[in-house]
Amino acid sequence: MKINYNDPLEAHKLLRGKIETKLKDPLNNPQKLSAYYTPGVAKVSSYLANNPSEMREYTSTNNTVAIISDGSAVLGLGDIGPEGAMPVMEGKAMLFKHFARIDAIPLVLNTKDPDEIIRVVAALAPSFGGINLEDISAPKCFYIEENLKKMLKIPVMHDDQHGTAVVVLAGLINALKVVGKDFKNLKITIVGAGAAGTAIAKLIYKYDPTSEILMLDSKGIISSARRDLNDAKKQLLKFTNKSSTSGSLEDALKNSDVFIGVSKGGLLKAEHIKSMAKNPIVFAMANPDPEILPGDAYATGAAVVATGRSDFPNQVNNALAFPGIFRGALDNQVTKITDEHKLKAALALAGIVKSPSAGEIIPKISNKKVVEKIASVIN
Amino acid sequence: MKINYNDPLEAHKLLRGKIETKLKDPLNNPQKLSAYYTPGVAKVSSYLANNPSEMREYTSTNNTVAIISDGSAVLGLGDIGPEGAMPVMEGKAMLFKHFARIDAIPLVLNTKDPDEIIRVVAALAPSFGGINLEDISAPKCFYIEENLKKMLKIPVMHDDQHGTAVVVLAGLINALKVVGKDFKNLKITIVGAGAAGTAIAKLIYKYDPTSEILMLDSKGIISSARRDLNDAKKQLLKFTNKSSTSGSLEDALKNSDVFIGVSKGGLLKAEHIKSMAKNPIVFAMANPDPEILPGDAYATGAAVVATGRSDFPNQVNNALAFPGIFRGALDNQVTKITDEHKLKAALALAGIVKSPSAGEIIPKISNKKVVEKIASVIN
Repeated sequence: MKINYNDPLEAHKLLRGKIETKLKDPLNNPQKLSAYYTPGVAKVSSYLANNPSEMREYTSTNNTVAIISDGSAVLGLGDIGPEGAMPVMEGKAMLFKHFARIDAIPLVLNTKDPDEIIRVVAALAPSFGGINLEDISAPKCFYIEENLKKMLKIPVMHDDQHGTAVVVLAGLINALKVVGKDFKNLKITIVGAGAAGTAIAKLIYKYDPTSEILMLDSKGIISSARRDLNDAKKQLLKFTNKSSTSGSLEDALKNSDVFIGVSKGGLLKAEHIKSMAKNPIVFAMANPDPEILPGDAYATGAAVVATGRSDFPNQVNNALAFPGIFRGALDNQVTKITDEHKLKAALALAGIVKSPSAGEIIPKISNKKVVEKIASVIN
Repeated sequence: MKINYNDPLEAHKLLRGKIETKLKDPLNNPQKLSAYYTPGVAKVSSYLANNPSEMREYTSTNNTVAIISDGSAVLGLGDIGPEGAMPVMEGKAMLFKHFARIDAIPLVLNTKDPDEIIRVVAALAPSFGGINLEDISAPKCFYIEENLKKMLKIPVMHDDQHGTAVVVLAGLINALKVVGKDFKNLKITIVGAGAAGTAIAKLIYKYDPTSEILMLDSKGIISSARRDLNDAKKQLLKFTNKSSTSGSLEDALKNSDVFIGVSKGGLLKAEHIKSMAKNPIVFAMANPDPEILPGDAYATGAAVVATGRSDFPNQVNNALAFPGIFRGALDNQVTKITDEHKLKAALALAGIVKSPSAGEIIPKISNKKVVEKIASVIN
């Protein structure tokens, strides 16, 4: 079968999906059928009925993760429903297997109700060793993840939040080394206050509570002067915007050391970068079109630029974080991914780049050390 | 890895489960990553957002079936919960792949509430091409299946009911040929009024409404004289026990042409068989110990004996039915498995045995024609 990889639609149609199941041991003799199915399996089932806590030892659940999405915030495409979400979830399942040998099952849901999503995932939990929430819109993604983490004894992670935050923090740690700045008392502007932006802000604050973080949504800087903030955004004011700044992107960026964009293509202009502090760091991660192209950013004085794209240096890609985080959680029977895990993962990831430079602040996803190094600190 | 197949517990532990995921196309170059994940997948997601009805063409859902169990009626072990159920569901997933190239995902649930099970499965439905309900106790299994069939546009089948019923009917069609009896005006005794027994009775009645079917549960013959019947059992009186017979197994078996046991080991005694009509047919399908051993049954006059075991001739095994039924449903985009499909499947299965004899009324599961023949009539 000859596949034209330049035509994703055709490639997907030819393949009729991207993942399948495989028998760990082929049923090539009747003895195996008797051992794995009737009558032999009855012994295993009886044993596990009496020793349910040992289920992981005898079933594939020890290495299986559910990828759960309601299709409400898929890539930059928005609320496109379960059908639109499925190709992304299958792609993610490919990455889980390819990078971390994890068997991931894409499950798209025919409901967008947060409580219903929680009930469904909680009911499914015995089938899995971990839960990866994916492409669920803010603010309900926070509520869903928080509740599932409380309810379940297996790791639950909303990757759009924490995978992104870990990679951004890793990149930022190395970018600051490149420009010779400390993490202390920085001014950081984050544009986009959805799942990713919120998690990035929280993790940066955890790592260093001294910095001034300004967050912006489509209406401007999130400040206590705003009367249109939902609860999730109000929560952000507990640790962002200590200076009570109001206004626009222009106002926020003045003297900022760092711009972090998880917003939309073309948002950042040359004059914005010129108003930033010396040696500005620009993470322009909107996909597929970054907030500013690296060439334009460097031309107007940016010292280090990262994007979400694979065709520029410094690709901020969740696939640098989630495979190792889940690999470690499964191997070390970690039941909750904590802030400490995420900080350790970011440091492990940053540490893989021995001599950071503007051209390399984060490893490439093809770097074989990434999964192993991150997995080793999730314990 | 050397596996001792005589020790199922050890074999399961060594393998750490029986199924895994596999990439249909390995990610061995960056071009593939771009086509199957970002940025390429966005094209597929956008397309499916606008054309959701074409989702099956572009994702693995066209060949993926969920195996759903709450662990409430696992094998003969009863209500052993999701942990005890999982090895059976994984075994079933092996059979789906091995016999019918279907990717089946075992999902055990942390709830036994019928309405909650319905909600969970309905929410998951977009992820699958079909739903196989498994090892869910009667009578709730009837309610769950009936409601899901109404709600969903993909095939839903409770295999303990219909898989078993199809194979029993196929075997019975051929057993009657062996003893030279017609299906008309038979007397049939079915012991066990749970999922399997109920579905067997219904399918036999659909095939031939002239026979007298007596059904028994642990309290005796199900008759209108009983005051302890649940709704599901009361429904059985609409087409069974036309003679209004009350009493025990002894009473039922007098002059019966056929005994069908889905009950418990050792229930059927030599004297029972002696009281049956000439050339009695005995389906002793309790597992792992049949209601009577074939040697004992033949010794007391049985003309044809079938069991659920692979070490005797005439194994009544669901694996003869469900792989072909789901293969056909997926290939032919059948959205509901109807009674007509089950009757056609039973006839197709029976037809594979060209010259039925006491030693061969049903094909072996290793017979390559089985899946193909059954699949061809599910359309």
